[in-house]
Amino acid sequence: MVSLDDLKALSRPAQTKIVLLVLDGLGGLSRAGDGKTELDAARTPNLDRLAAQGNLGLADPVAPGITPGSGPGHLGLFGYDPLRYRIGRGVLEAVGIDLEMTERDLAARGNFCTVDAKGLITDRRAGRIPTERCASLTPLLEKIGIPGVELIVRPVREHRFVVLFRGDGVEEGLSETDPQEIGKPPLPVQAEAPQAKKAADIANRFVAEARRVLAAEHPANMVLLRGFSKYPRLPKLTEIYGVRAAVIAVYPMYRGLAKLAGMQAVKTGDTVADEFATLESVFGDFDFFFLHVKKTDSAGEDGNFDKKVSIIEEVDAEIPRLLALAPDVLVVTGDHSTPATFKAHSWHPVPVLLWSKWCRPDGAARFTERECRYGNIGHIRAAELMPLVMAHAERLTKFGA
Amino acid sequence: MVSLDDLKALSRPAQTKIVLLVLDGLGGLSRAGDGKTELDAARTPNLDRLAAQGNLGLADPVAPGITPGSGPGHLGLFGYDPLRYRIGRGVLEAVGIDLEMTERDLAARGNFCTVDAKGLITDRRAGRIPTERCASLTPLLEKIGIPGVELIVRPVREHRFVVLFRGDGVEEGLSETDPQEIGKPPLPVQAEAPQAKKAADIANRFVAEARRVLAAEHPANMVLLRGFSKYPRLPKLTEIYGVRAAVIAVYPMYRGLAKLAGMQAVKTGDTVADEFATLESVFGDFDFFFLHVKKTDSAGEDGNFDKKVSIIEEVDAEIPRLLALAPDVLVVTGDHSTPATFKAHSWHPVPVLLWSKWCRPDGAARFTERECRYGNIGHIRAAELMPLVMAHAERLTKFGA
Repeated sequence: MVSLDDLKALSRPAQTKIVLLVLDGLGGLSRAGDGKTELDAARTPNLDRLAAQGNLGLADPVAPGITPGSGPGHLGLFGYDPLRYRIGRGVLEAVGIDLEMTERDLAARGNFCTVDAKGLITDRRAGRIPTERCASLTPLLEKIGIPGVELIVRPVREHRFVVLFRGDGVEEGLSETDPQEIGKPPLPVQAEAPQAKKAADIANRFVAEARRVLAAEHPANMVLLRGFSKYPRLPKLTEIYGVRAAVIAVYPMYRGLAKLAGMQAVKTGDTVADEFATLESVFGDFDFFFLHVKKTDSAGEDGNFDKKVSIIEEVDAEIPRLLALAPDVLVVTGDHSTPATFKAHSWHPVPVLLWSKWCRPDGAARFTERECRYGNIGHIRAAELMPLVMAHAERLTKFGA
Repeated sequence: MVSLDDLKALSRPAQTKIVLLVLDGLGGLSRAGDGKTELDAARTPNLDRLAAQGNLGLADPVAPGITPGSGPGHLGLFGYDPLRYRIGRGVLEAVGIDLEMTERDLAARGNFCTVDAKGLITDRRAGRIPTERCASLTPLLEKIGIPGVELIVRPVREHRFVVLFRGDGVEEGLSETDPQEIGKPPLPVQAEAPQAKKAADIANRFVAEARRVLAAEHPANMVLLRGFSKYPRLPKLTEIYGVRAAVIAVYPMYRGLAKLAGMQAVKTGDTVADEFATLESVFGDFDFFFLHVKKTDSAGEDGNFDKKVSIIEEVDAEIPRLLALAPDVLVVTGDHSTPATFKAHSWHPVPVLLWSKWCRPDGAARFTERECRYGNIGHIRAAELMPLVMAHAERLTKFGA
């Protein structure tokens, strides 16, 4: 794979506009009966026309057989090798609630849990307390005083919260406190790297103080921490390709992931049509637009084949509006597959459609997984897509003389 | 990618003959109207017959989206990963004028330029002096005496020249002197690596002396140097595969690139027919023949679709003559695409045709980019082609027991 340093050296300015339209979990599997995938079954005249003019392909989000979470799925699409650039669980939780992180932060995912008088865990999720209860408890944790660090503690949902340890020299490399079974005490945090010693002391002190301040809050009378992770230092798309990049996404998690890559979040509404309206309104202000549609994934996870089909059709209906903006490069793809028959993220490669005036046209009849097998892009890694996109946008100069 | 060391270990002697026929910039794009590429439009009965019997595929010269210069484009075809093996601008200029380099040489590309009385640049190209004037000035530079190095200075074209600093310990890692704008003085050469300190001192001394000896030569009264680079130590094809390899090319640049890979340059004439006649005359003397046709690329860069088509047809007409020599393996491909509609090198994958008696025949109707998408070779990196060629030539033994 071409390094980001090489890509940075090859980048050149251009006036071109790029739209990366991601239908979360787009890839599907054949349903019983007619054997159609969600894309096969959807009526998509607009995407089909682009498939005839543009190039199709299949992309493995991480590598063959690897099912990605949302983090690696999107990092790949943004051009970062997900095997090299990793995002910890703590950071992902913080990003998922739109919590701004700094490079001095160590994030962890927290669970409220229940312990008995001996300190042994009786419920790892504190009876799944309501989110409101969680929100009333996190201020108690935030008030814990630990010299040298500031604590930022925020509720997520039910028993889950995020904690940021903000300070100098608070490094990653910590073990988790969740023993993953009941009848045991929480584990002490251990430094798995020498530079993490200070952070381990701080985390252990936080856990001890948490037990004290939560003593009367049964069933949420203790905490478990995992996924300790620093804010990842990703080279930004701005630095690598010189693009002004924007993210249009309903859910904070995807805005957060895009912000890690240097994109600027743009306010939008709740519907697919709202997102395309936002694209129209900010089209003059940026060069690169990541537009994220969530509901294809949700429908897939629910096993709702028809719903996933209808979301795809809803997006297809917005394509003429998008093309009216005259983007130079349009990419339509998913961050991973979420086949409705599988009801979960899967490892299947995702269909890719790339359209620009510099395509050697595929002449495909439709935008489906089957047609994507025969496309000019071939079968690639998702992270290889971004250089191709930038080439079509005439934003890369010649490599070597 | 299989390492060259592994390939060397797998190599075994054979009596087979291999022809690598490179049509520079072969890959094309659809023209307006009928949507045909140059290969679509060309009448190529001989190549089409080979496409039916042999294997087709598409090759990315470097990686998806990366547009290669001639150096990386050819290195890939010769089996070297262009991302790993890099050729500096200075070396490429030297190679381009058939200047022999040794491993003690540091090459740089030079421009004559104009400076005013204060030493500020007023013209970075010295008014594009004629080549004859350049040739009359380079001996003045060559006579500059610097202890510890020999200077070889040769004219290229107009204001451009090459300088070789020949000596021990003259290492690469130098900054350029061209500030890339007028009104500024040339920049001093700086060592970007500790081992380049000696070379930096030598280069700075050369520049200072150049200003002195050129003082009366307005507008060519100063020099700018860039692309400082050592002769790359590529493992030779001879060493890796044990083949005696020859290059038949009209232009010195391609002979030079082939020589870097260990090929022996064979004298030839100016036409395509001359090159095939040369192939006939030396066919008994070597095992591997790289025959380079330049004019497909030139026609593409000129945006001359019909001319590119006619060169392809001219090459096709020579194929029976080539087959009469009974090569064991024939490969027909390009070092990159130069679509006539794009008028420049591009990133589009290049069509590949590999023909030997060991092909599982593709049965393709034609040798075109479209047919290549469906071929047995698939979509590969150019550097992966050479092991496949050597396998078909029965020159690689089994890997592992």
